[in-house]
Amino acid sequence: MDMDSSLPSAYEVTTHPGIQSLKPYVPGKAIEELAREQGLTDIIKLASNENPLGCSPLAKKALDQMTVHQLALYPSPLNHPLYDKLAAQLGIDRRHVILSNGSDFLFWYLLTVLALGQDKCMVTHQFAFSTYAIQAQTLGIPFITIPVDKNYGIDIDAMLMTCQKHAVAVVFIANPNNPTGVLTSKADILRLLEGLPRTTVLVLDEAYHEYAYPQGDSYSLELQRRFPNLVLTRTFSKIYGLAGLRLGYAIADPAIIELLLRVQLPFTVNQPALVAAYAALDDFAFLERTIVLNRMGLAQMREGLDTLGVNYFSSHTNFLTIDCGRSSIPVYEQLLSQGIIVRPLIPYGLMSHLRVTIGTEAQNERFLKQFKRIIQD
Amino acid sequence: MDMDSSLPSAYEVTTHPGIQSLKPYVPGKAIEELAREQGLTDIIKLASNENPLGCSPLAKKALDQMTVHQLALYPSPLNHPLYDKLAAQLGIDRRHVILSNGSDFLFWYLLTVLALGQDKCMVTHQFAFSTYAIQAQTLGIPFITIPVDKNYGIDIDAMLMTCQKHAVAVVFIANPNNPTGVLTSKADILRLLEGLPRTTVLVLDEAYHEYAYPQGDSYSLELQRRFPNLVLTRTFSKIYGLAGLRLGYAIADPAIIELLLRVQLPFTVNQPALVAAYAALDDFAFLERTIVLNRMGLAQMREGLDTLGVNYFSSHTNFLTIDCGRSSIPVYEQLLSQGIIVRPLIPYGLMSHLRVTIGTEAQNERFLKQFKRIIQD
Repeated sequence: MDMDSSLPSAYEVTTHPGIQSLKPYVPGKAIEELAREQGLTDIIKLASNENPLGCSPLAKKALDQMTVHQLALYPSPLNHPLYDKLAAQLGIDRRHVILSNGSDFLFWYLLTVLALGQDKCMVTHQFAFSTYAIQAQTLGIPFITIPVDKNYGIDIDAMLMTCQKHAVAVVFIANPNNPTGVLTSKADILRLLEGLPRTTVLVLDEAYHEYAYPQGDSYSLELQRRFPNLVLTRTFSKIYGLAGLRLGYAIADPAIIELLLRVQLPFTVNQPALVAAYAALDDFAFLERTIVLNRMGLAQMREGLDTLGVNYFSSHTNFLTIDCGRSSIPVYEQLLSQGIIVRPLIPYGLMSHLRVTIGTEAQNERFLKQFKRIIQD
Repeated sequence: MDMDSSLPSAYEVTTHPGIQSLKPYVPGKAIEELAREQGLTDIIKLASNENPLGCSPLAKKALDQMTVHQLALYPSPLNHPLYDKLAAQLGIDRRHVILSNGSDFLFWYLLTVLALGQDKCMVTHQFAFSTYAIQAQTLGIPFITIPVDKNYGIDIDAMLMTCQKHAVAVVFIANPNNPTGVLTSKADILRLLEGLPRTTVLVLDEAYHEYAYPQGDSYSLELQRRFPNLVLTRTFSKIYGLAGLRLGYAIADPAIIELLLRVQLPFTVNQPALVAAYAALDDFAFLERTIVLNRMGLAQMREGLDTLGVNYFSSHTNFLTIDCGRSSIPVYEQLLSQGIIVRPLIPYGLMSHLRVTIGTEAQNERFLKQFKRIIQD
């Protein structure tokens, strides 16, 4: 057996090379786990960019009204009115939409239909959300990672050159990017789309889109209509505060949606997710409260960090990626010991950076106070 | 573009041959859909083998107690106490268990780690749950379908011969089988395990296990300990009545679990599923009620069908597969017009069969009454 794990005695299981070098996902520290380990009670988690307000009260109310019989029925997402409501809010035809169990499953399905078994590769960039590359590796799809430019921005020229030189099925970009928070400009996205071969699909992962464009939708839907090889993915996990329910969606040309529907398992989206998202779409007051809290929180955090002379990436999201100016791990651990969970970015090769979710005013204050104590120590 | 769907103008997307011949999943008729189409109000769905009692009241109570903040947090299944509780109830070490979004995702992950990119194939049998073959096709993994014997049972000898002749990564069997309800004997499973090459994994899909062994667990856990190449999958969708929440699990050698953890997306299981299943495991009264209702319902349905002289497969599940003795479609459609949704099995090549879920006493009676009227017409 050519891998770490091994079956007893004479049994032998093999796997393809991509999986041989993968490690199981190590989840971020959970609140209950930290409580157990350190005997702490008042723990705040600023590690996974969840909504500090929780989810929409309308969504919670709709969930509470579900009956034991609804819970027992297989979900039938394609028959659910959420499809039409979401499409109507986006101002698009529902044939351009597919719902999925989180947007991460859509990346997997996109790689499966566009690249698997075709001697084609995936392209992404340095400091991109790591799941793109992990999923390509799982499926045995080769991938190329383009270094960022000196401002941590995407090097569009290098990306285009790579797409001319190789058979590239799909390019993945998060905009704004996670874990840096950096926004790619409309001009750059447009230049990329205009230069891409017409056989290459661009996936724009817009998980943080609503934070970057709080006034309403951006230009990307319009670009999607113009460029059928553009796929947008979005999520109910962030601004809608429904990360626990797992619901993401893609906006794409109907031909691509149809391919995704061929391979997507039929019951991927659960009933509570459909019910909660349907209600959440009406809760404009909750979205507004979230945006205001986040804007104020970002200002509060920036001000606090500026006072300390600490650098951070310019963020268009609900998190700040901070350069500790030294190895991040001791800072992370000292924060943990104070009951504050944040995200070190070692797996990204960002050795001195911590990603910190914008919390409530009190949570931000608590973070800033402890962070100050630690780095001035 | 070598497929049905097509992108506009000069854009071109290709996909591998397995996906080219797949069709999007057509969901069974939903209650709301039928209501809309036929203007009916009192509709019963006996099409997807859901629990007619709904889910456990303890599970519902636990769900109602979830806060907006819990709903907003990413699930962390590996840190959730459900793992330990489930393993303890099964009497196994938790390293032998993996939770997943329904057991269907586990089939996909098993195919990915065991067969993808290795020039190995998958083996299943005629009338097996169709998702095994669909998922192999999606991943471009060749598969071989073994015809059943004259009693619709699995032809173990033919299966063993195939596994000797070909490089078979994995064999999929549902026990009891869906959609026929037929149970494979312990002797046959043992003979298969003893004859399989030690490089071949047997996946026993035990979605209906608790209906077949209502007195408690069967021999399969014991066989799993003896044969590290045996993987069992089970679900909370059937007897626990949580199909809407999407939770399944596998029991396997830790080496295989470790491989699955490498490739499984980290947030596949949602928070409500974890919370509900944790509570449901304590609700022995609900399980007992479900088993009694199903036993009585099966007897009621068999008696009704015997009176009509209608044949059916001997079932060890919560459904009966009935031979209408004529094309099933007109019968299915007449039942629909009476507000009764059942499942025709045309895609399985069973042209005269309907799969009917055992419902409440009143639902079974209503089905029998309408079915009698239709076939005596």
